[in-house]
Amino acid sequence: MKAVCLLSGGLDSSVCLAYARRQGFSCYALSIDYGQRHRIELEAAARVAQALSVAEHRIVGVDLGGFGGSALTDRIAVPKHRSPEEMGQGIPVTYVPARNTVFLSLALAWAEVLQAADIFLGVNAIDYSGYPDCRPEYIEAFERMANMATKAGVEGLLRIRIHTPLIRLSKAEIVKLGSELGLDFRLTSSCYDPDETGRPCGACDSCLLRRKGFSEAGFQDPLEYK
Amino acid sequence: MKAVCLLSGGLDSSVCLAYARRQGFSCYALSIDYGQRHRIELEAAARVAQALSVAEHRIVGVDLGGFGGSALTDRIAVPKHRSPEEMGQGIPVTYVPARNTVFLSLALAWAEVLQAADIFLGVNAIDYSGYPDCRPEYIEAFERMANMATKAGVEGLLRIRIHTPLIRLSKAEIVKLGSELGLDFRLTSSCYDPDETGRPCGACDSCLLRRKGFSEAGFQDPLEYK
Repeated sequence: MKAVCLLSGGLDSSVCLAYARRQGFSCYALSIDYGQRHRIELEAAARVAQALSVAEHRIVGVDLGGFGGSALTDRIAVPKHRSPEEMGQGIPVTYVPARNTVFLSLALAWAEVLQAADIFLGVNAIDYSGYPDCRPEYIEAFERMANMATKAGVEGLLRIRIHTPLIRLSKAEIVKLGSELGLDFRLTSSCYDPDETGRPCGACDSCLLRRKGFSEAGFQDPLEYK
Repeated sequence: MKAVCLLSGGLDSSVCLAYARRQGFSCYALSIDYGQRHRIELEAAARVAQALSVAEHRIVGVDLGGFGGSALTDRIAVPKHRSPEEMGQGIPVTYVPARNTVFLSLALAWAEVLQAADIFLGVNAIDYSGYPDCRPEYIEAFERMANMATKAGVEGLLRIRIHTPLIRLSKAEIVKLGSELGLDFRLTSSCYDPDETGRPCGACDSCLLRRKGFSEAGFQDPLEYK
């Protein structure tokens, strides 16, 4: 069975892909080049896709950065050294407008062409509770819409399922799952603000959550931080 | 009030934009360059946007054509001279996978940045009954999902509405509405298979429906067909 797996090259989406593969799916990895300020993430995605022997890896360009409004695509500073309490307050400036909706829509388009019923997305509602499009009720609403949107769905030939195996896991549990699945964590890249060589800053929300996750799981993060 | 209006440059989306403007919205026209085989459509969109004095017109590139599966982006022949009965049978090969889902997602992203609550889409369920993502129940499912996807929606600050003023109109009624709104039909381009100069073929489904619409409305189509 074919599955389209959204793959950013970060920890979560890489563990999600490894999980889909372990479930026996033939995986079609989809990375979106949405005008990120750095290309490091896409290079990580290509490494992970290769290491996990996907059937195919595609990078689709979409100019989401042109709309502005996020520290990840715009010239807003990435916040550093925030406490878990600060991270939990409201929606972070690193939020990209309608990102998961755009990503899932593109995954749906490819799934329809591939005649794949299954789409995997490594979202997580626990450590990123500030992102509206990471919540289970959002995912369910997308799945419902997706089954009304496609030729195969309407003809009753394909029931689209959006799989989010990490949605209720803590970062420590995601690290443990990745380890059980044999994922090489060195291939992944989680930092919102890496230097030119790809070395993670260690201080943005994403780095802090990753480091905390490894620490709580009792694992050594193989990445070298600044 | 700001509205994002999806604009292909065809008859329907141009009438829809003219309608949104007449409703008093400040219109942000969004055209998607999704790997169409011809650029004529985008040129028509730019002409229409200018003629209707939009606040802004953006063309966002997304490589939907890379997925294949449609006569509009792939090397499948566009069907010609089909009868209304033939057009009504099943979903046409000109269907682009998940197209309206991708388009509406991008409109949602821009709407969120602009803090616009209103999105206009010129879909039509009557003459294109074969497209699953042109039906009212699909639009409602998208709107429901959209209100769970965004920061402003979750915070209760912005209730996203997807407007589809043409959804229950016949092509003749759309022509009449466009005429009432003062739309210059010469600016629009509906053909799936125009020649290099932009001249419409007159025989694809889209040309046939347009010509029939003008004829039934008792209007002269100002376009010169091959």
